Amino acid sequence: MAKTTKVGEVRLIPITLADEIVPGASIADKLVEALRRSRQRLRPGDILVVKHKIVSKAEGRLVDLATIKPSAESTAWAEQYKLDARVIELALQESRSVLRRKNGVLITETHHGFLCANSGIDVSNVDGGKTALLLPEDPDRSAANIRRALKKKTGILVPVIITDSFGRPWREGLTEFAIGIAGMKPLRDDRGRSDSHGYTLKASVEAVADELASAAGLVCGKLNRAPACIVRGFLYDPGPGTVHNLLRPAATDLFR
Amino acid sequence: MAKTTKVGEVRLIPITLADEIVPGASIADKLVEALRRSRQRLRPGDILVVKHKIVSKAEGRLVDLATIKPSAESTAWAEQYKLDARVIELALQESRSVLRRKNGVLITETHHGFLCANSGIDVSNVDGGKTALLLPEDPDRSAANIRRALKKKTGILVPVIITDSFGRPWREGLTEFAIGIAGMKPLRDDRGRSDSHGYTLKASVEAVADELASAAGLVCGKLNRAPACIVRGFLYDPGPGTVHNLLRPAATDLFR
Repeated sequence: MAKTTKVGEVRLIPITLADEIVPGASIADKLVEALRRSRQRLRPGDILVVKHKIVSKAEGRLVDLATIKPSAESTAWAEQYKLDARVIELALQESRSVLRRKNGVLITETHHGFLCANSGIDVSNVDGGKTALLLPEDPDRSAANIRRALKKKTGILVPVIITDSFGRPWREGLTEFAIGIAGMKPLRDDRGRSDSHGYTLKASVEAVADELASAAGLVCGKLNRAPACIVRGFLYDPGPGTVHNLLRPAATDLFR
Repeated sequence: MAKTTKVGEVRLIPITLADEIVPGASIADKLVEALRRSRQRLRPGDILVVKHKIVSKAEGRLVDLATIKPSAESTAWAEQYKLDARVIELALQESRSVLRRKNGVLITETHHGFLCANSGIDVSNVDGGKTALLLPEDPDRSAANIRRALKKKTGILVPVIITDSFGRPWREGLTEFAIGIAGMKPLRDDRGRSDSHGYTLKASVEAVADELASAAGLVCGKLNRAPACIVRGFLYDPGPGTVHNLLRPAATDLFR
């Protein structure tokens, strides 16, 4: 498969897994196997983007909902909106604060600092609703682990981004966001560089890690069994990066 | 340039313009010329994504700031934060309401219904700060016009998305958002479809137009003079679509 990437062009290459990820599985092994099957391979300059679900599963972040005892408050609120009170209770346990609880929507700040619905807990396609899937405990660490394992297996060191789909204030629909990063800077800061007119660009800090996550959302999906993709051709800023660079401190946030 | 796109793979192909867009220019003509120069061409199934700036310029959405007389309130607030009072005044004129005015940041709801800083007005690289660039008056119509002109010129009918870079609550950095759409549905609704387990997917309405905008942000930029790109290989839902499908009504928005 000698395929070249034209300068300036970016390719989004989905990675389709043959089977389910189970607790204890090596994500790096599964991805490298999947690439080999489709006669692709990781190349220097690539970025790997992975949906968090397979990472959470591999890390055993599963909770048997039968073990969760909801409070009276969670039960009352869940009943009002026909929700599973155990999921609400678990979402509260996984949060450091509640941002909004209204109209059946619970927006929390997770222990990591993510602002999202139900602390990012997923129950839709795990075990028919008996088991909840939590976000990875430390998604930056998860990304670094996958990066290291891929290097060991392929000799190639690539940035890794872990994503989840979140709703947004003001806009309808979900998009993918970066929740863990290793090996690249999540923000591209063009301030001080000149544009094609010779003017110095003003406030142009671009959240490239979130743009990479969104781009990956176009080719990754539940329906096509592609929980990861390679982004090829994007000139990232190497260097240490953490998802915390993307999280606006509460003190400077006008919308909390 | 016989280059194939592997099934499932998406390509982001930047379109680099040779010269500046001036009021009255045909965006479709300029893009087709640019593609021809780089020995590319539009193909059925492609999506065209265009940054709004060249659209606004072509549509003559330029305002001489010398003609703007700021109110005493705008002047006082601008002085406090070392801003241009005329830009603040113009942003207020371009808005239907003010969401936040704090710490030198002005977040408005534009006449179109977009929630963004300074009503999306841009002064950074136009004419050394003497001229402001407004958003297109009706970006859906702008997108439809470009789509129609491209069809006339190339025989190929493609969806067109117009974008702008907005900040987000809770997250640092800007990303590209869709502000005008023609020829595709901006939301992909997977509710009711089955995933690979046979479970019915729950809330999975994906804002694909915003994900396409973000993906385009990876290859379009001021520094490389590429204000547009082709997205090739993405299976969009054809049919009528408007950016208003992406705008959450104030009544159901928990963050206004």
